[in-house]
Parts: sequence; C-alpha cells; structure tokens
Amino acid sequence: MSMLVGGWIAIDEVETPFAKTSGALGGSATFTVLAASLFTPVRLLAAIGEDFPTEFRAALGRPNVDLTGLTVEGAETSRWGARYSYDMNSRDTLYTVFGVNAAWKPRIPAGWEDTTAACMSALDPVMQRDLIRALPASRVSLVDTIRFFIDTALPELRTTMNVADFVTLNEDEARQIAGTPSIAKAGRKFIEEGVQGLVIKLGEYGAVYMSKSDYFVAPGYPLEEVLDPTGAGDAFAGGFLGYLDTVTAITPAEIRRALIYASTVASFCVEGYGPARLLTLTRAEVDQRYRAFRTLTHFDVD
Amino acid sequence: MSMLVGGWIAIDEVETPFAKTSGALGGSATFTVLAASLFTPVRLLAAIGEDFPTEFRAALGRPNVDLTGLTVEGAETSRWGARYSYDMNSRDTLYTVFGVNAAWKPRIPAGWEDTTAACMSALDPVMQRDLIRALPASRVSLVDTIRFFIDTALPELRTTMNVADFVTLNEDEARQIAGTPSIAKAGRKFIEEGVQGLVIKLGEYGAVYMSKSDYFVAPGYPLEEVLDPTGAGDAFAGGFLGYLDTVTAITPAEIRRALIYASTVASFCVEGYGPARLLTLTRAEVDQRYRAFRTLTHFDVD
Repeated sequence: MSMLVGGWIAIDEVETPFAKTSGALGGSATFTVLAASLFTPVRLLAAIGEDFPTEFRAALGRPNVDLTGLTVEGAETSRWGARYSYDMNSRDTLYTVFGVNAAWKPRIPAGWEDTTAACMSALDPVMQRDLIRALPASRVSLVDTIRFFIDTALPELRTTMNVADFVTLNEDEARQIAGTPSIAKAGRKFIEEGVQGLVIKLGEYGAVYMSKSDYFVAPGYPLEEVLDPTGAGDAFAGGFLGYLDTVTAITPAEIRRALIYASTVASFCVEGYGPARLLTLTRAEVDQRYRAFRTLTHFDVD
Repeated sequence: MSMLVGGWIAIDEVETPFAKTSGALGGSATFTVLAASLFTPVRLLAAIGEDFPTEFRAALGRPNVDLTGLTVEGAETSRWGARYSYDMNSRDTLYTVFGVNAAWKPRIPAGWEDTTAACMSALDPVMQRDLIRALPASRVSLVDTIRFFIDTALPELRTTMNVADFVTLNEDEARQIAGTPSIAKAGRKFIEEGVQGLVIKLGEYGAVYMSKSDYFVAPGYPLEEVLDPTGAGDAFAGGFLGYLDTVTAITPAEIRRALIYASTVASFCVEGYGPARLLTLTRAEVDQRYRAFRTLTHFDVD
C-alpha cells in the first residue's frame, strides 16, 4: 500500500488571538502528508520554489514519506496569510501568493503506478480528477477543496466530487455549494447528485459522514488548548484516507474507524502551531486517543 | 416519582427565516414540562395572568401534568419576542415583558413534598435554590438559566449552580461565565469550583457532559428541517431530568442515557413551531429515535 497526496506546499503567516507565526511550513499537502504518514507510506506530489528552506524539506521527509514528486520550479514557493477570530471558529485569509502553483503541472513520477490511494488536497478540480484517473491501481480516493475553487471552478469541482470515493468539505463550504443552511439537507443533495461518500467537517464539533446507506457522527475531541486550527481539516483528510489505505476491505465499519482516526489526528494538529505537533506525533499516541474517543461517546441502548 | 418544574410560562412572538408566529404558547417551563412529561409525572410551578388563553392551559394539562401550581396572578402573562439568524444558530431577543413574573413568589402546593426531582428552568437564582431546598424528598435537581440572570445576578447564580446536581448552560453562556473560548476549559473550571454535573448545550451539534470523573459527548440528531429552535434547550433539560427521575440509581451510564434522551427530545422540539411538535410527541417516537442515535454514533475499537 501507498498513498499519493497531491496539493500545495506553502509558507504560512498565521495570527491567532494568542500568537503570530510567520515563515512557517504550511500548505494543505503538508498537513495531509504528515497525518497520513502515521498510517501508511505516502508519496508527495507538489511544487516548491528554490526559496524553499532546506529544513522544511527535511521535516517533510519523514521515514515513510517519498519526496520524489516534490519538484522545484522556477518561481517562489506559495505563500498564505490568515488571521483567526477570538474563538478560532472562523478566520480571514489575508493573502494568497500562488507562486510556483500558478503554472505547476503535476507529473506522476515513474514507479508510482502502483499507488493504492489517492488523496487530493485543494487543487484545481480538473487536475484533481486527472490525477485520480492516472492511478489505475488506486482503490480509494478523496478530494478536498477550498473556497477559491468553489468560487472560481464550481462546475468542474462538482464533476470531480462525483469521481472521488470520498469528498471532504467544511460546514460552510457544504452550505455554500448546496445553498441550504441544513447540513443534513446539503448532504442528502450531494449524495443524490452523485457524491459517493461525503464528510462534512464541523471544526471543534467533529464531523458527519453520509453515503447512500450510512450516516455517522464523529465528535470533536475536547481540547482545553487550541493553539492553531490551521491544517486541521487537511490532517483530518490525511488521517482518514491514510487509515483506509491500510484496511483489507473498505466496509462501513472501517469508514467509521477512519473518521475517528481522522478526528483524532486533527485534534492533535490544533495542539501545535502549524504542523509542529504532527511532526512529533506517534501512532501510539493516536491509538491511545482513538480509544478515548470510544469512552467519550459510548452509551447503552438497553 | 414526580418532577417539579419551576419557571416561566409566556406568550411568544418568534421570527425565523421562514415564518413568523405570534401569540404562541411559550416560556421555558412550557417546553421543559412537555418534554419531561414523556418520561415521568410532572408538577408545574409557574404564574400566568388572567389573559392566559384557556386553550394554552388545556395544552399544558397533559395526562401526567399536574397544574395545581399554575397560579393566576393579578398582572399580564409574561411575553417574549425574538428573531433568528439565517442558519438559526443565533437569535436576538427583541423584547421581554416580565408581567406576572416581576412579582411572583412561588409557593409549593400542599402534597407536593414527595416530589422526587426538581427541574429549575430560568428563574431568579435565589428562587431556584430555595425551591430545590424546599423539596426534601427530591433525589435529583437541575438548574438552567438565561443571559438575563448571568448579567444581573451572577454571584447568586454561581452559588445556585453548586447547589444543584446538574447545571445546563448554552455554549455561549458557559464561555461568558468562565471567560474562556474553550468549552473543555470552561467546563473544568466550573467543576473545580463546585459544579457537580455540567451539561453544555451545543445547539445542532449536541451537548457535552462533564463531571469530576466523566466526560461524554452527545451528538445532535441530523435534521433536514429545523422550523424553530425556540425551547430546544428547555426540552433538553426536561427530557434529561425527566428520564433520570425514572431510574433506579443515577449512575454514569444512566446519565449518558439521559443525555441521549435529552438530545432526542430537543431534536423533535425544533421540528415544529413553538411547542407544537412536543404536544403530539409520543414515548414510542422518542425511543425509536434514541435507538437511531446509537446507530449514528457507534464505532468499533478493535
């Protein structure tokens, strides 16, 4: 097994009510790769500029992360700046510098044809589905997105959402695309229109999963200190698909396990600035918190 | 077993994005009584004016609701007006007319000394704890509140919160009183300062329960149509304590069941305008949705 993560690597500047960080390793692919690598070998497909710090490349190059697909292009690394509200449940993007990603054309390295899972972080939706289709051995795929592509490429995004096995959206994104304030109604609409597995991420409240035959609610892990929500949704996606890449068969029960693993990894992510906590996180810590989720949510019927 | 509900009965005017109702039966005690009466016999302690419509009294007088404590005072019935935001997750109170409740002094009717549960809807906090203490046979009590008492009587409210067995607060109320955006941290602070069982209501996202030794997350039931969130928190409290009034022993497992029952009843409440859905709700419907909650949240650890 091995999972390809396609997306952006960036240099972030993030302001929370408690701290401001700049020149930090970021980009959705960063968080997705680090989360997924806790479960399965990962192949990163992304572009950086010549300005990309050596130590950031070293941070990404975890033992089971293959950086062959991380190419240096002739422009600057993407940059992103954002500021969070007091309760950290909302943020404003202050700027996005596309840099190398303005013209990047991803090419899957030779030897990666045996990739078994395709995880598409936010990218141009046509690029996302081309990459999914270019991996014939992949048995599971996921697409995430950001508001930019909802605003500029919605028809293509809707097509791509129906190609992937799983789609992850934020609550606000789901409401925006579906045009309804009800999450349950938005989800049903997506499923009726061809989405196979939909995850709506609820931030600190967890996530809901919907398919034609299932509906599952995964709570958020109760945290006393949230340092930085950046990348939590990307870590969620990476943990989710990373776990699913390792299972014998992708059953409803395994999908539920994957959602709890996803919520678990996301909960660790927000405990550090940028990807700092993910960089020290171990599978044993993940498994311990996974079991705590069970204790948090269990109740008896009879 | 029998549960006393002390609180306000009111005539409501509510505007949602989809409809406007006026002259409707409302008040926190109304929703609490109707929810609790699905589980246990209820005794209502509240005041109304001579203007209170006969049909509202009839609506409250369900088979197992005792209205002996519903007294007619020499002033108008309380009135409340509110408007909800587009996603119904927030509302503005437009006006509150105290009416009879400005001067009401609750008196427990003769024969109610054997009351086994005390559920205090939003009331003056001194009145709340006096009523709890005036019921010597009561083995479980709950206190709810509203922003008005947080703003005007916080020290008394904090004392009352430590007298009750359970306290229910909205997310925003918990954050406001504790002075922290973290729900987990707010909860721990309340517990350390003497609250015994704390429920923080998260609206459509469910609720969390905290005590010295337990932490439980109850999800919200996924609803496609929310007609009117008014009273959902009060129905939650009524369902919670109404169920607990019926159990042999108040164990952590029973408290978790009570929270799911509470979330269940609250989910029905918002499916109708005002208390309309609660007035037709049956225990069989409640039990069916309770079991659906299990399916929604179950996952395997091993």
